[in-house]
This record gives sequence, structure tokens and C-alpha cells, in this order.
Amino acid sequence: MAAQTVASTTDSVDLGPAAALSCRECGHRVPLGPVFACEECFGPLEIAYDFSAYDTEELRKRIEAGPANIWRYAPLLPVPADVAEKPNINPGWTKLVQADNLARELGVDPGKLFVKDDSGNPTHSFKDRVVAQAIEAARAFGFTTLSCSSTGNLAGAVGAAAARAGFRSCVFIPHDLEQGKIVMAAIYGGELVGIEGNYDDVNRFCSELIGDPAGEGWGFVNVNLRPYYAEGSKTLAYEICEQLGWRLPDQLVVPIASGSQLTKIDKGLQELIKLGLVEDRPYKIFGAQAEGCSPVSVAYKAGHEVVRPQKPNTIAKSLAIGNPADGPYVLDIARRTGGAVEDVNDEQVVDAIKLLARTEGIFAETAGGVTVGVTRKLIENGLLDPTKTTVVLNTGDGLKTLDAVAGTGLTATIRPNLDSFREAGLA
Amino acid sequence: MAAQTVASTTDSVDLGPAAALSCRECGHRVPLGPVFACEECFGPLEIAYDFSAYDTEELRKRIEAGPANIWRYAPLLPVPADVAEKPNINPGWTKLVQADNLARELGVDPGKLFVKDDSGNPTHSFKDRVVAQAIEAARAFGFTTLSCSSTGNLAGAVGAAAARAGFRSCVFIPHDLEQGKIVMAAIYGGELVGIEGNYDDVNRFCSELIGDPAGEGWGFVNVNLRPYYAEGSKTLAYEICEQLGWRLPDQLVVPIASGSQLTKIDKGLQELIKLGLVEDRPYKIFGAQAEGCSPVSVAYKAGHEVVRPQKPNTIAKSLAIGNPADGPYVLDIARRTGGAVEDVNDEQVVDAIKLLARTEGIFAETAGGVTVGVTRKLIENGLLDPTKTTVVLNTGDGLKTLDAVAGTGLTATIRPNLDSFREAGLA
Repeated sequence: MAAQTVASTTDSVDLGPAAALSCRECGHRVPLGPVFACEECFGPLEIAYDFSAYDTEELRKRIEAGPANIWRYAPLLPVPADVAEKPNINPGWTKLVQADNLARELGVDPGKLFVKDDSGNPTHSFKDRVVAQAIEAARAFGFTTLSCSSTGNLAGAVGAAAARAGFRSCVFIPHDLEQGKIVMAAIYGGELVGIEGNYDDVNRFCSELIGDPAGEGWGFVNVNLRPYYAEGSKTLAYEICEQLGWRLPDQLVVPIASGSQLTKIDKGLQELIKLGLVEDRPYKIFGAQAEGCSPVSVAYKAGHEVVRPQKPNTIAKSLAIGNPADGPYVLDIARRTGGAVEDVNDEQVVDAIKLLARTEGIFAETAGGVTVGVTRKLIENGLLDPTKTTVVLNTGDGLKTLDAVAGTGLTATIRPNLDSFREAGLA
Repeated sequence: MAAQTVASTTDSVDLGPAAALSCRECGHRVPLGPVFACEECFGPLEIAYDFSAYDTEELRKRIEAGPANIWRYAPLLPVPADVAEKPNINPGWTKLVQADNLARELGVDPGKLFVKDDSGNPTHSFKDRVVAQAIEAARAFGFTTLSCSSTGNLAGAVGAAAARAGFRSCVFIPHDLEQGKIVMAAIYGGELVGIEGNYDDVNRFCSELIGDPAGEGWGFVNVNLRPYYAEGSKTLAYEICEQLGWRLPDQLVVPIASGSQLTKIDKGLQELIKLGLVEDRPYKIFGAQAEGCSPVSVAYKAGHEVVRPQKPNTIAKSLAIGNPADGPYVLDIARRTGGAVEDVNDEQVVDAIKLLARTEGIFAETAGGVTVGVTRKLIENGLLDPTKTTVVLNTGDGLKTLDAVAGTGLTATIRPNLDSFREAGLA
């Protein structure tokens, strides 16, 4: 796969501690550039870092003195050291909520359950973390247009970040998306192109465009910038540990779409251990899917090492990837750490959204309903230990998936007087 | 006005530096309690503080070492010193965005324009700040039910905060609100009561309930808890100054609904000056309204000291208070500081929402469209100095007022092939 722009080698780009791209499958290394697949084996390329110069306690102090966003971890990310001075939407440092009310309902020990609430990001989903990384890579490689295919959260994140960072954006979506989702992506003023076809057609078209001269100078955040983009998920691991007082949680419950987030959280935890920022001790990672799109969960339960694709049919649309690229890596991590992969049905997703809202005041997207629902199920079937420190991820905001809970309504309707109030039994 | 609960005197409640309630009109003082109107003159009661024990530099250090939310300012708020340990939704410490792209469009000098973006709060509006205060007062006074009348943002903020803090909530809304707004408030699982009538009917009913035994033990956040609730807006002033490096901005543009937010921001700035945390120098406060509900702007321009009520008709529904209680105080502050009050029409509100989104990647609620639109108008008519440090408030999230920008849509629709892409002129 040829790099597409002028500044495409390690020598000419400054992405901080990022030293090269390395194939996850065969280990083949290539210089930093806008490439994503290994030229030897077609395996996925990942960032290889040089962290050798860091002193643990100096690094810890530097991080703690950094800004209240992901750039506090700039020394561990593929970004230049002065990244915080560049225009970006600066996501991250979202709340880690000690969820004692939820713990009580789920039978978890007091003080042991936490929700990492990524709805606090600028466009209210974890996608801001990954797009913020892609922006910096795009800048380094001299791209001027930022692009992606999307059916929702990613379109908004790319639109917002591109606007602020001064990039042109061109986002491709199925032309018949709900009007609300179109508004959320269109408001940032970039090109928002409807494709006459379904999401698969959109993706196929983007692959065509990326190999064509028309796509010259375009950074597709989750295609040719994917190795950089994906690293944004590591910041979830960093923040969780720092917010726990530089401690590893015992258990994490992470949603699975492509599986990239879960694998990068594991990578982030491993880095913290190697750097000495947290104690080296075991942790378990649990993956969460919706039953209507559960290829990894099905493979896990069947003991398979590969994932058989599914045709998604679930309200958890942000997780509805039927053929998850990182599925095999997720299976490996869940098994290696002693975790598991579980799924819940749409009714359980809705119940879990309501449970989280009424216990902790957090209104989660359907993906958050999946993780909370799966946590409950894992406790019930004995796979998750309710006496251990557990972090459940909520990766998006309920305002984005209002349809899923549209049945929620008034508890009473009364006339505007005290008699009517008393009759309704509200006193 | 009799206090309603057991713990109703200064002696028996711990609300930190809050020493008493004091009438804004006549200065009459009463003990801290769930009362809001002066028994002498019916003027509004405000919190009177005792800050005498504070050393400036110790206080600054204590604040800077505090949590990344409004409780870093606990020493300046009517809350107990250990407030950060109590369950609350912990709003605040939202981003102050240096808006260089917007500055360029508006003709403001580079580095001089900032947007204080309160859409980053837990339920995505500044209401979380005031409700968080009301919660702590409700706890101190022994209330067990939290209540309010609302048409939107406040209902969600009360529902979420009550859920997390372990209060019962009972929120009253007009029964025929849009389904989306009902879902956003109902999801937290409290009582959500539809009143057969309009917002005025809802308010009238709440006033009746508060004087009735049926309302015993109920804290209405913006009625009997209003003196505490309103103080939450001071935190906007504190954060802006701290985020500017403990400097006062030269100019602030603040939306006006009841006018309480603007008056409390002024109070917060005055407190910082008196405490020595910022230099004592002039600042100007500008008020922003929508033309369709502009009673304060009309009074300002006519040179009046009182405000004539209006019947609201604007898309900026979160600002649509036709008879703003703090209107006269706002007029006084705008004139005293050398600011002004201005309004923009609905078309200008929508344009400003789009302008902010495409320049800074911030999707604001209609109230944010009002402040950005007014800022542009104030620069055009020479009232706001584009060479001075200016902070514009965005108090809510665009996801909550999608209808206002529903016309925003696809820039092109194409077939999934490169020929169609080229024909659309997108290459």
C-alpha cells in the first residue's frame, strides 16, 4: 500500500514517541506514514513506540501537571510534544463515577463499582478520543481533507474536530439516515454526502475513493489513518488507572464494535505496567455485545478462535459491526486475562439504560446499556467478581439514541390543582 | 414565610461559609433556611458569606488542588467543606475554548475571544451547576423530595441529580411537551407529572403546592431553595477567571432568562476581587436576549429601570421568560459596568449556531446562538471592543434543540461510485 502524501516517512514527521509502524501479525516494521496494512502479510499495522527515555516518577509528574484532557498523556501517544497548543477539540479526562447506587442494585460491594462516562466528551462519545489522534496524524502527513464513512457518532466527531482544527471535512453516510443524525453531523458545516445505498455501499465506495487520485490528500480517519486513530482508545485505560490513584482495576467491562477499543485498552494497561506507573498484577477484561450483533460473544462461548460474521439487528447501532476486524484479538485478550465475552438482548439493553439513569443520573447511549446489562449478567452467572474493583464503560450519550427509550414517559397527568394531585397519589 | 422543615436555622445547618440570608433590597438578615422572600419587604433573599478567615494565597492553592468540578470552589459556596465526598453529579470545570476561528470571522483580535462551553456538564446545560447547589441545601434542610417546574433543561438536571444523590424527585411539566423532552426528563426514573395546562399553569400549581401540607418536605430548587440554587452561577465567573490564569476578562456576553445567571456572575467576579484572587480592574457585562423575548433589552434601550413583561415567541425556549425576576438588577449591572443589553432575531440565532459549529466545532443550544449572535451585533454597532479579552457563554447543548436547526442537511447525494462523486464536484 503506497503512502499518499509528501511527508510520509519517519524522518520527516514529528509524532512524538511514535517510532514506526509495526505489523500486529508478523512484526514487520515500516516508517510512520498513512498506511494501515502490512505489505508483507496484510496484517494490521500498529504504532511502535520508543519509551526508553522515560523516568517513571518524572513521567508521572509530567502527566499529573498536564491539561485536563487526553493531551496529558502526550508522551505516550503518536502526537508531537506541543500538541496541546494546536487547535483540536481536546477530548478526554471524563468522569470516573463511583457508582454506589448501581453497585447496591447489582450486588457489588460498596466503593467497588465505577462507570467511566465518556458522554462528557465534546461531541458526547468516545469517538472524540480517536478522531483527535487522527487529526494530529493528518496534520503531520500534510492532509487537508478529513473523511470517514459513518452512521452516526463518528460523523459528528469528525465534523467537529475538522472544523476546529481547520481541515475541510467530507463525511459519507447512507442518504436515508434519520434527520436528527443528519443534523448532528451537518451542523459543523463540512461536506456531508449521502450515498444512495446502505452502509456497506458507503464503505465500498470509500475504499474505491482512497485508491483513486480523487482521494489524494484525504485522510480517512478509520482507514489510512487507522493506526493513529485507534491509539486514542488507550487514553481510556490511562485515565481509568490515574483516576483510581494509579491503580489497575481488577475488572473492566468494555463494549465491542470492531473490537479495537478493547484491544487498545489492553495495550494501554500493558504500557502503564511496563512503564512502572501501575503495579504489575492481574486484571480481567470482559467484552460486551448486543445479542442482535454478537459475533465475538458467540465465538467466545463456542471456544472458537475466529469470528463468524453476522448480519446486525439490534438497537445498539453504534456497536452493530457484524464482521469485527479485531474480533480474534478480543477473544485472545478475554481468554488470556481470565475475562469473558457476553451479550444481552435489546430489552435488557433498555432496562440497563434506565437502571443506570435512575441510580447514577447518567443517561447512556445504547452501547452503555449493553455494558451495564452485560455486567449484571456476568455477576448473575458468576463470571464477574462483585467484591473486586470493576470499571464499566459508557461510551456515548443517551441524547443520541432517544428512539431506543422512546416509551419512557410521564408517570402521571393531572389537572393544575391540589385535589387532582392528591387523587393521583403523589402527596 | 415560615421555614418548612426541622433543620431550618443557621445553628443547625452546615453550609460552609454561608452565614445567613440577606435581603437584596433592604438588607434584612434571617438565619439560613428554605425561604426565598424577605419577611420585611418581600425582596429576594441572597446568601451572605463570612469569608473573613481566608488568606488569599492559601485559598488560591486550596482551589487549584481541588477537584475538576465546581467543588474546587467549595470555600466560596453555601456547601459543607466535605461536599466533594457526597453523592452529587459534580458539574463544572467545563472548557474555556480559545475561539480563534470564530474571532477571525467576527473581527476580534487573535487570542482575545473565548467560549465558555457549558454543554460539557453532566446533563449538558449550566442548570447542573445550580441544581448541584440546591441538592446540598436540600440535604442540609432535611428535604427528601426534590421538585421544580420546567419545560426542559431543568427537568433533566433535577432528575439526574436527585437520582444520584438519593432523593425522590417530582418534576412538573406541561403535559403536551415534545416526546423527546419528556424522555430526557423521564429517563432518570423520578416522578414526571404532566399538568393539563401551559407553563404558567404549572408554575401556579407549584406555588399552591409549596404552601400546602402536601408539599411538606419538598425542596423546589428554584423556589424555596432559590437562594442556594442561584449561587451555582457564581461558579461560571470563578472558572472563567481561573482558566484565564486568575485574570478578569475585559468583557463577558451572558444570556438572560430570569437574569439570575448574569447577576450571580457579577457577584462572583466581585467576590474574587474582594478576596484578592484577581486584580481589581474594570470589566463589562453584556446581556443577550432573543428578539422574541427581549424585555430586558427593550428596557435597556429605552433607558428604563424597570422591565415591562412580554409574551415570549422565540426558538430560544430556554431563555423565554417574559417577566424576568432579576431584570432590574441586570439593567443596573449592564449600565454600571459599561456593558449593554442586546437582542437578535431567530434567523440570527440559527446563523450564529451554525457559525459557532463550523468555526469551533461546538454545537450550541439556541441560547448559545443568542450569545454568539449578540456578540457579532455588539461588535458591529461598536459596543463591544474587539481588541479586548471577551468571554461568550454557551449554556447548553445543540442536541437538546435540534428542531431549531432541522433545515441543516446533506450537502450532496450521490450514487456509490467515483463518476457520481466527480459529477457532484466533490473531488
